[in-house]
Order: sequence, then C-alpha cells, then structure tokens
Amino acid sequence: MNETEFVIEPGRQDIVVKRVFDASPDVVFQAFTDPKLIPNWWGPRRYSTVVDRAEVHSGGAWRFINRDAEGNDYGFHGVYHEVAAPQRIVQTFEFEGMPRHVALETATFEEVDGKTRYVGTSVFQSVEDRDGMVQSGMEEGSRETMDRLAEVVATL
Amino acid sequence: MNETEFVIEPGRQDIVVKRVFDASPDVVFQAFTDPKLIPNWWGPRRYSTVVDRAEVHSGGAWRFINRDAEGNDYGFHGVYHEVAAPQRIVQTFEFEGMPRHVALETATFEEVDGKTRYVGTSVFQSVEDRDGMVQSGMEEGSRETMDRLAEVVATL
Repeated sequence: MNETEFVIEPGRQDIVVKRVFDASPDVVFQAFTDPKLIPNWWGPRRYSTVVDRAEVHSGGAWRFINRDAEGNDYGFHGVYHEVAAPQRIVQTFEFEGMPRHVALETATFEEVDGKTRYVGTSVFQSVEDRDGMVQSGMEEGSRETMDRLAEVVATL
Repeated sequence: MNETEFVIEPGRQDIVVKRVFDASPDVVFQAFTDPKLIPNWWGPRRYSTVVDRAEVHSGGAWRFINRDAEGNDYGFHGVYHEVAAPQRIVQTFEFEGMPRHVALETATFEEVDGKTRYVGTSVFQSVEDRDGMVQSGMEEGSRETMDRLAEVVATL
C-alpha cells in the first residue's frame, strides 16, 4: 500500500498531506465527494461518520459528524469555495469542539501514470492553531483516513 | 483620523490589518456588510465597486467587481464561512485575475471604550501567495479602503 507523506515545517501555518491512489482522478474524486461513500472513509476507524450536509458544489455547505462507541458526537463543518471535478476542492473546515478556529483546505487530484497524486493542504489562522492540530494527533488520524480512502477507491 | 496598522512578518502566510473606528461594533458591522454601503468603501477610490452577489450569512456567497475608468472589470468572490453580527466574519477570498489562489479572511470587531477595534487577518495558501499580495500594492489599497470605511461609518 502507498504511504501517506506529511509536510509540517516549524513556524508555518500549514500542513500538507500527500498520497498516491491507484486509480484515476475521476474515481478518487468520486470517493472523496460522494455523500454515500464519505461515511466509509472520513475520519479514524473508531468513529462512525454521519453526513449531515454535503452540498458538494462551489458555494455549498458541508457538515459531518464523528460518533464514538458511547454515542458522543463530534461535529465538523464548512463551506465549499470551489469544487472543480476531478481536479480540485477548496473548502473551509471547523471542528465544532474548538469553535472559531477555521482552516482553509485545498485538495488537488493530479493524474500521474494512470494513478492519482493527491495533495491536501490545510492553512490555519495562526501558527498556534496549526501546532495545536498537530499535537491533537492529526497525523495519525489523517494517515488512517487516507488508508480508508484507498480501500474505498479499490472497491470502485 | 486613526491610522491603519499592518503586521506582515517575513516567512509567514498571513497579513494582519488593524484599525480603530469611532463608532460601536453595530455601526461598523453595518457599514462592513450592508450591500448598499459596500460600494462606498470597498476597494481603492479609483475604482467603482459593483456588488454582484452579497448573501451576507453563514454559508452565503459574495462577488464584488472593481471597475476602472476605462470600463475594465476586476472580479473578486468567495463564500462566508461564518457571519456573526456584530463580532466576526470568516470568509474566503479569490481575485479572479489570479484564479486558484484563495485566502481565508477573518474580520473581528471588538468594542473598546465606545469605539471599535477591527482586526482583519488574511491567511494565504503559501508564503509565495502572501508575498505576491504584498508586492501587488495591497498595503496602499487596504489603507485607502480602511479610510473610506471610516468615512462611511462617520455618516451613519
């Protein structure tokens, strides 16, 4: 299985996640955006994911919920600035457990030798917000999410 | 008249603009968001401003046009992640003349001794994007915009 790479440089406000998926951008984009598929990969495995809102078009809104085994809900929401299938998504991101800390996320899907090179960049409002996200265990969660996404892609 | 302050540190991805307005947050927020007032202050004086779209609520979209004396149009657009009157607006920002370069903008309005302390933070997708915005003369344009906003506030 391909490895997920992270670029997290000291003093910067961003986190970059890279991964190669063994399918075309059309397929990866479908897995990434289809509200029926999102619960199968979005977030760590220990949560179930509920898609509360997924208006996957420029100007639309999204809200997903991670639910743990005890029934606790963790909400996330944002708006889509741009959805350009199958190349690019630009959206905002806010974890409702830490309100008023918003990130700008850019996902790009590039075809390379029949595979898809995914690059996800999250830019935070401050270095402190970025560092807090890293310390919260984001890297482990993101790696698991990317592995799950690869599994969904493999089924399409 | 109050001065506009800028915080633009080397190697960072953000630009911070600060200004004190001589009115309550309610009044400043109104000037900032009322589509009828936006053309009176948004952008440098040498352009006229057309409000093409201003859905000023969380999840809404916006698009403004700067028009020069020769009739050339310069479009800007984004989505509102959060509109919380009169304290806070979080939105995306894209200049259509440089497509696919998006910023996340956070505006806060805080009451201090009957006046309003405005802090506007723009976070860019890269240091290069941030530096490009600075080199394009953003500081001069932003200073003029803040002066114009103060003039509109004074009329309310």
